[in-house]
Amino acid sequence: MSTIRSLSLILALAFVLKAGAAPAQDDPAPPPTTMASVLAEASPADWRPIDLAHTLYLTLPAGRVVIELAPAFAPAHVANIEALVAERFFDGLAVTRSQDNYVVQWGDPTPEGDERRPIRNAKSTLAPEFERALSADLAIARLEDPDSYAPQVGFAHGLPVAFDPERGEAWLAHCYGMVGVGRDVSPDSGSGAELYVVIGHSPRHLDRNVTLVGRVVEGMELLSTLPRGTGNLGFYEDPAEMVPIGSIRLGTELTASERAHLETLRTDTETFRKLIAARRTRTESWFAQPTGRIGLCNVPLPVRARPE
Amino acid sequence: MSTIRSLSLILALAFVLKAGAAPAQDDPAPPPTTMASVLAEASPADWRPIDLAHTLYLTLPAGRVVIELAPAFAPAHVANIEALVAERFFDGLAVTRSQDNYVVQWGDPTPEGDERRPIRNAKSTLAPEFERALSADLAIARLEDPDSYAPQVGFAHGLPVAFDPERGEAWLAHCYGMVGVGRDVSPDSGSGAELYVVIGHSPRHLDRNVTLVGRVVEGMELLSTLPRGTGNLGFYEDPAEMVPIGSIRLGTELTASERAHLETLRTDTETFRKLIAARRTRTESWFAQPTGRIGLCNVPLPVRARPE
Repeated sequence: MSTIRSLSLILALAFVLKAGAAPAQDDPAPPPTTMASVLAEASPADWRPIDLAHTLYLTLPAGRVVIELAPAFAPAHVANIEALVAERFFDGLAVTRSQDNYVVQWGDPTPEGDERRPIRNAKSTLAPEFERALSADLAIARLEDPDSYAPQVGFAHGLPVAFDPERGEAWLAHCYGMVGVGRDVSPDSGSGAELYVVIGHSPRHLDRNVTLVGRVVEGMELLSTLPRGTGNLGFYEDPAEMVPIGSIRLGTELTASERAHLETLRTDTETFRKLIAARRTRTESWFAQPTGRIGLCNVPLPVRARPE
Repeated sequence: MSTIRSLSLILALAFVLKAGAAPAQDDPAPPPTTMASVLAEASPADWRPIDLAHTLYLTLPAGRVVIELAPAFAPAHVANIEALVAERFFDGLAVTRSQDNYVVQWGDPTPEGDERRPIRNAKSTLAPEFERALSADLAIARLEDPDSYAPQVGFAHGLPVAFDPERGEAWLAHCYGMVGVGRDVSPDSGSGAELYVVIGHSPRHLDRNVTLVGRVVEGMELLSTLPRGTGNLGFYEDPAEMVPIGSIRLGTELTASERAHLETLRTDTETFRKLIAARRTRTESWFAQPTGRIGLCNVPLPVRARPE
């Protein structure tokens, strides 16, 4: 394996690189199957546009975060969050919490007891949507490796899911970048007025304890790099530390030039199965141990700008 | 369960909190076993001091990061990193890479081809220490739940480990905050002159592909919040973005007032087994679903300031 090819694999595959590598001769060995090669061979039909009608654009001082919602798993919560957006509930609120290796969260920064922003048209509480039926219309690309938290895992609608065939239930999994609905002790106390995003190792013990409503598809680094709060649970102690939210809008409210024009790799395709295989057993020369197994939250879910 | 107690559990246990909760009456039900209650009942012998002789103090503009090394797993790499510290190899180098949901890495920021800092007394390459023998002197507190990547997992010497009884091998696992040795394509091309820290979901496919040498025990948030690099693999493209390293010192080189005085919960104790049980099956009233399973990288490894 030449160093040139090795270096290109290094660049394509994001492993831990010792900086710099001397150029060398190319060689004629066929390239191994990698995520990069699978994506290079993908057809336009392997991708689908992000669903504008169910996409949030969160505006922060540092830029924009784009979240695709998951009506297939949490239709009532998705509808309520969209109702909150319609009444401009979030505009001028703030990121109130940043807890290392856990979550960033936003909502009303007003202390409990003081007058908080009213919810006018949306619902203030909702029945939980912790699980959904494992019905025939939910095609799951199953992962074969064991999972620490669920009987079975895989992907559906572009999202990481866990499921239990015996109970006939499926649920979204708390992987990096997933978005959930904060709640009080009562399971029906969430509304979507407080949302959180996973910024660390997947807190899978929250699965089926919180309603997950989607995932970040752009701007994740704007959330993950926020200074950590020094209060309990990473809440900011000083209001001046909180990060103001300019607005949250639906993708359909924006003009074409304001939109992100993203598409995501479909997870119900042969291409996605090849991607999993390429990440599961690593053929790149860097890998002394090809692994041969993969965890649910380690499978990349590619997003790209839609080709012109 | 009273709201007062529920709120204290919320604060102690770091789940996703809907901000604020009204105070209410206390009630006489016995408190459930939680991580907080296990730690409150722990004895001084359940903790051990961080090993000063094998601890790195990394000084960044924003503060100090403390890393405890793991000579039980990578003795040659630990000795070489300590030799690099002794010759002041790291002083004035920089954090050169910050890749979202993956790693932060430091080393010589000088581009390949230009004159880089020489290694004078330490070794420039080392045989990999990807695994060690699963010998009788390695007491592992085993986790009972399945792992996506290894036949068995657990904890030894305060660190997350995976192991294979059939092959008689054990290895450190790439959980959040673990520190590893960057290398080129050749497995013996690492020296410790470039080190990385996991800042996202555990990249367990790197297990047995890189020599892990320890974990961050203080200051993790100084690394995890660094702005992400915009180059390939999260390398900083503009040298001005790199974060300068003031120095790296061993704990034994510092005065008592400069040291962190940390201790970590032992993992070979009944107390640690209770902690795992409390985190595995959640008894706090917030948990609608107690989970009853736990992943290797989801088990907290508590560190605290040593009591006076």
